[in-house]
Amino acid sequence: MPRARIYMDWNATAPLLSEAREAVLSALDINGNPSSVHGEGRALRAIVESARRDVAALCGAQPAEVTFTSGATEAANMVLTPHFRMGRTPLKLGKLYVSAIEHPAVREGGRFAREMMGEIPVSSAGLVDTGALEALLGAHDRQSGLPMVAVMLANNETGIIQPIAEIAAIVRTHGGLLVVDAVQAAGRVPLSMEALGADFLIVSSHKIGGPKGAGALVARGEVMMPSPLIHGGGQEKGHRSGTENAPAIAGFAAAARMAVGNLEGRMGAIAALRDRLETEMRCQAPDVVIHGADVPRLANTTFFTLPGLKAETGQIAFDLEGVALSAGSACSSGKVGQSHVLTAMGYDPRQGALRISIGESTTQAEIEQCAAVFAKVAARRRASGQAA
Amino acid sequence: MPRARIYMDWNATAPLLSEAREAVLSALDINGNPSSVHGEGRALRAIVESARRDVAALCGAQPAEVTFTSGATEAANMVLTPHFRMGRTPLKLGKLYVSAIEHPAVREGGRFAREMMGEIPVSSAGLVDTGALEALLGAHDRQSGLPMVAVMLANNETGIIQPIAEIAAIVRTHGGLLVVDAVQAAGRVPLSMEALGADFLIVSSHKIGGPKGAGALVARGEVMMPSPLIHGGGQEKGHRSGTENAPAIAGFAAAARMAVGNLEGRMGAIAALRDRLETEMRCQAPDVVIHGADVPRLANTTFFTLPGLKAETGQIAFDLEGVALSAGSACSSGKVGQSHVLTAMGYDPRQGALRISIGESTTQAEIEQCAAVFAKVAARRRASGQAA
Repeated sequence: MPRARIYMDWNATAPLLSEAREAVLSALDINGNPSSVHGEGRALRAIVESARRDVAALCGAQPAEVTFTSGATEAANMVLTPHFRMGRTPLKLGKLYVSAIEHPAVREGGRFAREMMGEIPVSSAGLVDTGALEALLGAHDRQSGLPMVAVMLANNETGIIQPIAEIAAIVRTHGGLLVVDAVQAAGRVPLSMEALGADFLIVSSHKIGGPKGAGALVARGEVMMPSPLIHGGGQEKGHRSGTENAPAIAGFAAAARMAVGNLEGRMGAIAALRDRLETEMRCQAPDVVIHGADVPRLANTTFFTLPGLKAETGQIAFDLEGVALSAGSACSSGKVGQSHVLTAMGYDPRQGALRISIGESTTQAEIEQCAAVFAKVAARRRASGQAA
Repeated sequence: MPRARIYMDWNATAPLLSEAREAVLSALDINGNPSSVHGEGRALRAIVESARRDVAALCGAQPAEVTFTSGATEAANMVLTPHFRMGRTPLKLGKLYVSAIEHPAVREGGRFAREMMGEIPVSSAGLVDTGALEALLGAHDRQSGLPMVAVMLANNETGIIQPIAEIAAIVRTHGGLLVVDAVQAAGRVPLSMEALGADFLIVSSHKIGGPKGAGALVARGEVMMPSPLIHGGGQEKGHRSGTENAPAIAGFAAAARMAVGNLEGRMGAIAALRDRLETEMRCQAPDVVIHGADVPRLANTTFFTLPGLKAETGQIAFDLEGVALSAGSACSSGKVGQSHVLTAMGYDPRQGALRISIGESTTQAEIEQCAAVFAKVAARRRASGQAA
């Protein structure tokens, strides 16, 4: 009998929560367009506006500060632009500084030209080098416009949590804007615009148990906003045109409601499972390198390198044994590229690393099964010397 | 007992087809990310690639020519840009000419600055003035770059069908690129990139019975493409980054498959219902003006003005009687603005017009019910002289 698959790739996409699935279905079954004035349209509008409150609550923000997008990548492209407005007054940003470990959606810089971008290095521990940020902002040419800084709250590959409040203080001192990609952190650490000191936050539905197709750009206040990326019918107060994807937004909201409930308890349980797995891994292969093990990290993520095992090979081996995990992040249509995160941390990226990411529905039995597969893969590697 | 609602706003959003609903659910229930290499990811990838074939078939195009987006508005913003690539060579467009009756998603011009845009007038019958287009392109400054022309195949408010092949011949003569918004035409008239002579076609899922959250930009060939609007992980061959919304794309594909089946038969039945309704309307109110009645029009659309009845008032009256229809198009969060389409056709837009748009599941009984409501609204208007 084939064993059930074990899904340990939550950082790529979290399994859809049943609450989110139901919310999607309810909205799918209403005919109409949220911008229509008739009863059907108003019912969908009510769903979208109620969702805005839930997503705001997830982020410690006000509903009016939430702009829905098709996902986090779109939200990043929307906010990463030199062209802002302060009310009706145009405001120009001079340069974008992104950390070396940002997700490609941020690393690509949106509407900033390459020559308007700078990179903030990270330490070998995977933490943003705040001294380097200070130096970059100190050297920033204010004549060119304000600086924008983009640093993620938690890294998608390692799970390492960045000292955003400290970074925000530096950015504030230099009069810059701070964009925080909270895609992986949402639902795993508490979010508060105020406590983080972020000017903009990016969140995604399908990373917290909602459906694909929804994300949000959350602003601090309503006055300063990027020039729209998508123009048209003027939805989302003109910040993002296009018919609102009410079913996905409804599912996003349901997931957001779940994400704020009993956060500490949920993460405690997940950390216990993850730690147990890591203990097993270290027993089976004492030479395993668990990246970020010594710094603040998401409770659900293990990013590891097994000397002598190439990440691609390892990923296929786990997949064949029924465990879905990933070699780095999931993008570029299945191509496994070298991890820019490992490179930024000073590791040789050629061997790569594997990411196990779990969540609320992960069971003790799955952890044990995964540990058994790990033991098998690690032993095979030893048997053949260089497994790949 | 409350009567069932009658949904006659298909041009805003068509009711979700049961086939599309099922396809959405099947994809929703697969964990994972279409870009992941493991089994779950590959299952989602297969869904996306199969969908690409279905959407290509809807448009008379090749699968590789289809780029999925979050919807038609995004697709329009993606293609309407001065910055193209011919393979790896940058190609600059000099100016964008849009017809005066385009949807706001196109009328706003995407990434073209206002001063790089021109408007093509339409006749009082609602057809693009091809003589004026000739003159505009004749006066185009080729030094500034190639001209781009955007004309919709069928108008969302009137349903009027434009002579795209004729327009394409003019654009070709002047070495320009033609973008055709086929959002309302898809599933109602046959689509063929070749027969239309379009360089790019825009289609939307939720207008053909698929879910919200998916659309496509279809290109003729793969060589000439706009610079990406959304950068990041490099999905969609780098043309559109962001995790593919596999459930919405799967539903879009299911709707696309339905949209090409028995097109003539389906549209014949819908036209018979629509014509019957219009006959009733003319009987009840001989002064009713049905816009576009004398030119080629979609089978499902009736855009009408009842002298003495303001569109907003009429819309609310129909809504209270259980009929969902619209006053112009559905956007800008429920605000009923003056119709730029009526203005372009030379009508005084202040009174406005109402749009009835029906579809495959519209019944004879609903048509009769709608006619009865129309009679009531028309009589009330007469009774009070100026109903609004």
